[in-house]
Amino acid sequence: MARVLTPRAEDFPRWYQDLISKAQLADNGPVRGTMVIRPTAYAIWERMQADMDARIKAAGAENAYFPLFIPESYLKREAEHVEGFSPELAVVTHGGGKQLAEPVVVRPTSETVIGEFMAKWVDSYRDLPLLLNQWANVVRWEMRPRIFLRTSEFLWQEGHTAHATEADAKAYTLKIHHEVYERHMRDLLAIPVVLGRKTNRERFAGATSTYTLEAMMGDGKALQMGTSHELGQNFAKAFDVAYSSQAGTREHAWTTSWGTSTRMLGGLIMCHGDDNGMRVPPALAPIQALVTVVKETDGSITSAARTLVEDLVAAGVRAKLDDRVDTPFGRRAVDAELKGYPIRVEVGPRDLAEGRVVLVRRIDGSKTPLQLGEAVGAVTAALEADQKALYDEALARREANTVEVSTLDEALEAAGTGWARVPWSAVGVDGEALANERAITVRCLFRADGSVPASQDEPDLTAILARSY
Amino acid sequence: MARVLTPRAEDFPRWYQDLISKAQLADNGPVRGTMVIRPTAYAIWERMQADMDARIKAAGAENAYFPLFIPESYLKREAEHVEGFSPELAVVTHGGGKQLAEPVVVRPTSETVIGEFMAKWVDSYRDLPLLLNQWANVVRWEMRPRIFLRTSEFLWQEGHTAHATEADAKAYTLKIHHEVYERHMRDLLAIPVVLGRKTNRERFAGATSTYTLEAMMGDGKALQMGTSHELGQNFAKAFDVAYSSQAGTREHAWTTSWGTSTRMLGGLIMCHGDDNGMRVPPALAPIQALVTVVKETDGSITSAARTLVEDLVAAGVRAKLDDRVDTPFGRRAVDAELKGYPIRVEVGPRDLAEGRVVLVRRIDGSKTPLQLGEAVGAVTAALEADQKALYDEALARREANTVEVSTLDEALEAAGTGWARVPWSAVGVDGEALANERAITVRCLFRADGSVPASQDEPDLTAILARSY
Repeated sequence: MARVLTPRAEDFPRWYQDLISKAQLADNGPVRGTMVIRPTAYAIWERMQADMDARIKAAGAENAYFPLFIPESYLKREAEHVEGFSPELAVVTHGGGKQLAEPVVVRPTSETVIGEFMAKWVDSYRDLPLLLNQWANVVRWEMRPRIFLRTSEFLWQEGHTAHATEADAKAYTLKIHHEVYERHMRDLLAIPVVLGRKTNRERFAGATSTYTLEAMMGDGKALQMGTSHELGQNFAKAFDVAYSSQAGTREHAWTTSWGTSTRMLGGLIMCHGDDNGMRVPPALAPIQALVTVVKETDGSITSAARTLVEDLVAAGVRAKLDDRVDTPFGRRAVDAELKGYPIRVEVGPRDLAEGRVVLVRRIDGSKTPLQLGEAVGAVTAALEADQKALYDEALARREANTVEVSTLDEALEAAGTGWARVPWSAVGVDGEALANERAITVRCLFRADGSVPASQDEPDLTAILARSY
Repeated sequence: MARVLTPRAEDFPRWYQDLISKAQLADNGPVRGTMVIRPTAYAIWERMQADMDARIKAAGAENAYFPLFIPESYLKREAEHVEGFSPELAVVTHGGGKQLAEPVVVRPTSETVIGEFMAKWVDSYRDLPLLLNQWANVVRWEMRPRIFLRTSEFLWQEGHTAHATEADAKAYTLKIHHEVYERHMRDLLAIPVVLGRKTNRERFAGATSTYTLEAMMGDGKALQMGTSHELGQNFAKAFDVAYSSQAGTREHAWTTSWGTSTRMLGGLIMCHGDDNGMRVPPALAPIQALVTVVKETDGSITSAARTLVEDLVAAGVRAKLDDRVDTPFGRRAVDAELKGYPIRVEVGPRDLAEGRVVLVRRIDGSKTPLQLGEAVGAVTAALEADQKALYDEALARREANTVEVSTLDEALEAAGTGWARVPWSAVGVDGEALANERAITVRCLFRADGSVPASQDEPDLTAILARSY
């Protein structure tokens, strides 16, 4: 079969670009750094959204929508925040044919505008916690854009909450981190993630604590899949989000924010993709089983394939018929591999004459002849097995490419090709700066029991060092 | 009971603003004309989206996402389009700390940028029809903003399709108009709509035909609830969306676009709302039945109420418990009326001692004592009846406030307080201009059998004249 994609081992970034183009996932937009998300990728994003949204609602947050445009002055109210985001802002200076009195920024994130409204809505301790989430587009001007990973505009959910106490804010941030984000990534995306704390250097602009979920990609680099932030009282003071306590005193709230984005699509591609294309985990896949008519004779092949699709749908499988027999079978097979449908069922005249179809699993390319009557059971069993197998494979790769070391030098060496686990005390703030010079970052810090520390100054922390996207 | 809202008869616009504020539906954003959609309203929008999205997918379109930012030059490629939208554009002149070489507009609608990509993706007649939809925010600078109705930023779905023939484009536009939009409004929103054609004067900038769905609000004015456009080959030529025909010739495609937005939330409020607040149709309502603990004695009231909620949920009702007994019952009742929950079930100690609860229907405020065991059946029956009753009531009001007349003068007179149905031949282009001077517009044109005409020049058309939002 002709080579469709540049092999990963030859040039991983090129493979990624090839795949995005050939599988018709996305295109570059006309304005630098923007992207067009095509239906194949958008359908996956919609399923990510549905699952994440349900988990966020189960955690008690409600969806709302805040404006795209934020007065420039709002960002300036939180000093670290404006410093962090200023270089990335898109600024609207003209509206309705006139120059605006005050320039307006296109939201890079919404802490400031939401802070303004939290201040209006919160009055008493009875109004807390206030748990909000929004699905929106945000804009951060990117110098080195890459589709899904770094784009000037991207889609995300951003949660924003206000709490009466620091302890409550911390508990909610960690609840989102563990119960919403980690489970979404583990159970739906089949991506193992390491949870930890960002160093002060890598912390979100305006946060007191940033927690991250890091995944290993097919080339051994790290991708930050999502982050949650404790914002302390920084934004609450900047926007006067205050409440009357039960004791009658006036107190500032403690706020949090947390987000995941279309970047997860990039993570999905780079975690599970192989040299033939995407491999979409069955639980996530918009199309789980493609039933392909190999070729048609008298209409009976398509008819049998259609019945199989109906039987699969009745069994709860997201199945689709491919009866485009005018297109060569080989080309359709290549396209199905590129798009990563977990299962193909090939229905052809010769096999069907003997009551058989062929089950093709995307995870390993294996082809299994089956009696037609066994097909539904075999498909559902394969979908369940392959969801688990994709996770296990990603975890095994991460373990194989993570080296436990004890010095900074060894860590920098190991981070050239994979991840280094190293005592944070062996790295420290100076070691972190040195690593950064070599394009290696401290991805996160965690305790010996895997839990996230309250500060980077805790003793006995472990650091992951790696190159990253 | 103290007056919560300005009565509609006293000041309808004031009533609308009061309701949006008191029911906590939305706030004005900090940048003029923008809005914050609060959870109560956003939850309704999410249910609108889910229903509309399913209907759009059933009509064969796939979701995608195109960039927020469009090069200014794109808009200029279609002469009428740029003329129509120029006065409403927001323009980004700075990005990433630098002045941009070419200013970028924030999309007011996406025909241009989608045209650019249709041109890339369409090559052969086999690629047609290309049926796309996106859920997005758009920006049109508004001089006279009003929440939900006219906002500088709003949320919508915009469908964009390309077809091989004019007939196919027309058929698809009308399919969306009738099978998607009208049914969504009729069956979910319980809003009767008149379908028709916009006059040339009211046509979308760049379209050859614009079809509209018009609803009557509580004050007799019209609201355009959605529109669908045949774009002819205007955009296809401007962006070179062309294909090789089966005969081997190179042909330009025929494109369409169609949209509905958060404006429908305004329509919902103004069509069904009464002097006590919103009335959300049961099929649409995120919370269909609020089970209210009137007051608590020994915990048994809340326990009974919770069991009832569970029974309702098991019966497929979206039920919620209101056990905030620290808040006075009267205040909670007022809030429930403002938010328009279709059914309240009041569970109080005195009634419960006799095995009874009280069913309160939002549609008419009626209170019916029921045996607890009858409650689930009574709630489900009331939800079904009230969905129909809200539609019937809106239709009856529209009929009662629509006058059939035969001259322009009579039509202008009738349009002062309601709708006028008048032969289009009695109005004409000159009459339309005259009406516009009096803030009355031709809402739409239709044939005697109710179908939409192919041109405003067809004989024997009927026009609806009205004031509008």
